[in-house]
Amino acid sequence: MAVQTVASTTDSVDLGPAAALSCRECGHRVPLGPVFACEECFGPLEIAYDFSAYDTEELRKQIEAGPANIWRYAPLLPVPADVADKPNINPGWTKLVKADNLARELGVTGGLYVKDDSGNPTHSFKDRVVAQAIEAARAFGFTTLSCSSTGNLAGAVGAAAARAGFRSCVFIPHDLEQGKVVMAAVYGGELVGIEGNYDDVNRFCSELIGDPAGEGWGFVNVNLRPYYAEGSKTLAYEICEQLGWRLPDQLVVPIASGSQLTKIDKGLQELIKLGLVEDKPYKIFGAQAEGCSPVSVAYKAGHDVVRPQKPDTIAKSLAIGNPADGPYVLDIARRTGGAVEDVTDEQIVDAIKLLARTEGIFAETAGGVTVGVTKKLVENGLLDPALTTVVLNTGDGLKTLDAVAGTGLTATIRPSLDSFREAGLV
Amino acid sequence: MAVQTVASTTDSVDLGPAAALSCRECGHRVPLGPVFACEECFGPLEIAYDFSAYDTEELRKQIEAGPANIWRYAPLLPVPADVADKPNINPGWTKLVKADNLARELGVTGGLYVKDDSGNPTHSFKDRVVAQAIEAARAFGFTTLSCSSTGNLAGAVGAAAARAGFRSCVFIPHDLEQGKVVMAAVYGGELVGIEGNYDDVNRFCSELIGDPAGEGWGFVNVNLRPYYAEGSKTLAYEICEQLGWRLPDQLVVPIASGSQLTKIDKGLQELIKLGLVEDKPYKIFGAQAEGCSPVSVAYKAGHDVVRPQKPDTIAKSLAIGNPADGPYVLDIARRTGGAVEDVTDEQIVDAIKLLARTEGIFAETAGGVTVGVTKKLVENGLLDPALTTVVLNTGDGLKTLDAVAGTGLTATIRPSLDSFREAGLV
Repeated sequence: MAVQTVASTTDSVDLGPAAALSCRECGHRVPLGPVFACEECFGPLEIAYDFSAYDTEELRKQIEAGPANIWRYAPLLPVPADVADKPNINPGWTKLVKADNLARELGVTGGLYVKDDSGNPTHSFKDRVVAQAIEAARAFGFTTLSCSSTGNLAGAVGAAAARAGFRSCVFIPHDLEQGKVVMAAVYGGELVGIEGNYDDVNRFCSELIGDPAGEGWGFVNVNLRPYYAEGSKTLAYEICEQLGWRLPDQLVVPIASGSQLTKIDKGLQELIKLGLVEDKPYKIFGAQAEGCSPVSVAYKAGHDVVRPQKPDTIAKSLAIGNPADGPYVLDIARRTGGAVEDVTDEQIVDAIKLLARTEGIFAETAGGVTVGVTKKLVENGLLDPALTTVVLNTGDGLKTLDAVAGTGLTATIRPSLDSFREAGLV
Repeated sequence: MAVQTVASTTDSVDLGPAAALSCRECGHRVPLGPVFACEECFGPLEIAYDFSAYDTEELRKQIEAGPANIWRYAPLLPVPADVADKPNINPGWTKLVKADNLARELGVTGGLYVKDDSGNPTHSFKDRVVAQAIEAARAFGFTTLSCSSTGNLAGAVGAAAARAGFRSCVFIPHDLEQGKVVMAAVYGGELVGIEGNYDDVNRFCSELIGDPAGEGWGFVNVNLRPYYAEGSKTLAYEICEQLGWRLPDQLVVPIASGSQLTKIDKGLQELIKLGLVEDKPYKIFGAQAEGCSPVSVAYKAGHDVVRPQKPDTIAKSLAIGNPADGPYVLDIARRTGGAVEDVTDEQIVDAIKLLARTEGIFAETAGGVTVGVTKKLVENGLLDPALTTVVLNTGDGLKTLDAVAGTGLTATIRPSLDSFREAGLV
């Protein structure tokens, strides 16, 4: 595992309350830098903060007076205090939609909300994590932003890099659908097709990080991963603030690598410790597609270890067969009294249509997964319909139009009232 | 011209500060109802308000304490005071992006901003106008929401109707591209293909409004048009509030029917009259595609009358060859010291890429028109680069991917460092 030499030292790095990197497994601490694996045990590094100086009510006031984007939570993120003045695409503060129509259809009576992250600048939650990576890249003096991707991340990196004044170079499988290539290419960065599959692309990126050719390059989800991952905490912060500084009782969160779910839990725990919300139980449920359900399978079998799968599902943004944070997800689901469940591709499509038909929200396949899983969890009694429940939609249906390509005209008529009447629409 | 019988009377209608409908041509007033043409002169009806009771500073406070959507301006819109509690897709409060990178490329030094309406729920400004029509439809007791459309409006109506609990029935040309059909159909309303072109669809809708079969139907841009059109005022309100309750010096606004531009001017005038902004000059510039430039042609020729064109441009959301509000647009452009300009399809594509490359904003073709026209106006000296300028992007690039289909991979390589080095990317 390549641990890159760091040009900047902690002394010269201002990332706000971020104090150090700390190993999730063994607790070993290292200075802030573009590293992602513990030198002692190879465990994942995450940000350790110093929040000790905060007064709860002052912090709440500061947040509430902040901008309508993730930077209202700058005091809780690895970013400098003046982050809102820097060029960034400023994601977040997306709608928490009270979904009464959907609740009625699902039989949820305790209040059902959809956190709709399709409202982000490039229409997926990836903008949240990339925005953090951008600030870390700035702090470490990187000039090129990079990643491997098959979709949402490529667009998020391209857009954020363009606005922030970074060069970008994104690697994708060379045979990606033309639409996805266009969405990623339009921002004008380098977009390199790799002759091979997504695994080949990832392997190549790992090589590049350890090579002189990759010097000055920040790979948002590799050597900047500890910073990048923190972006998901903002989903937890926003949900609680939008509920009036209250924890929801239940959350349904999609699982790809599992990072988002673990960071949402981290965010909720921070709010409790800071006194911004009352300490009370909450349950976190993980949602997968049956065609890529390694965590769900392990959960149901009572295993602590996640056995990799070869993905085969329309929910491509969740199709990670060997999720790095799988074991942590299992732990959180079990510890909080949640569960991990999966749905078929057909159920995903049905759920996309259900959400659109009831709330006017057109979700990506990942949103079909969470809504479909919510429905299943109500049916099998694992989710309590009498409790306040928040379901995440992490992306936009415009990016996965193929999934609902069967949807079409309800009738075709001639331009006449007679023809209209014959169609039986009145 | 069909003037529908109104079930509800003004007495029973609570549309907040809306006091009556008033003819734009002759000033004749009629009670609030689902009518759109003056019974005296056939001129267009618009909303007349009673703002007389407002105290400036109290109003400002009320707005600033309001929700992060258009309903913060409820006191200035034809909606009931409790509108924010009703099911609606709650558009607006989209980002006003300080576009410093774009400003540098265009040579604008006085501050350049992009009002990015791709952040709306269905990713176009149409959500603003449909949201008003929904509240009017509720007030008048309509149960079905309808429109003719070739794109953005169909999705906006489908989504808003779904959430607000209306039946929807949208009419489109039967041979629309499959992608656009899917985007409109996913919300589960009736989507009817008409065998004919867009003119045939419109003609059919006009027949339906006058027929018993159309009873109880609100056509958002026909019999609800006076209410619908007011939604565009919120763009003016938001821009000024986001600038710190300050009028911009110059605005660049796209022209389809011309309604949006005229309502933005109306909104700015209202803010001045209410004392919410300082009274000072501002210039409004209209932007068209050369392939559908009836207002631009009339402007340049010094005419007061707009001669219809047959549209032929990639900017399909602006392709109205006979714009109803064309003469009003000409008047506003001339009165404020602005202008009307047009750009070619090639310039539209270049401008989409320019905006994406500089600010990470992927605009619909309509956004390419406004950015392209801004560039042209700087070059020909009609727009003063030393003044504060706001450019509107009214839609999302994901909806017009074909326009930039030529964008693609910058290189294809084998998954090896040697192959990467050969490609000359480092």
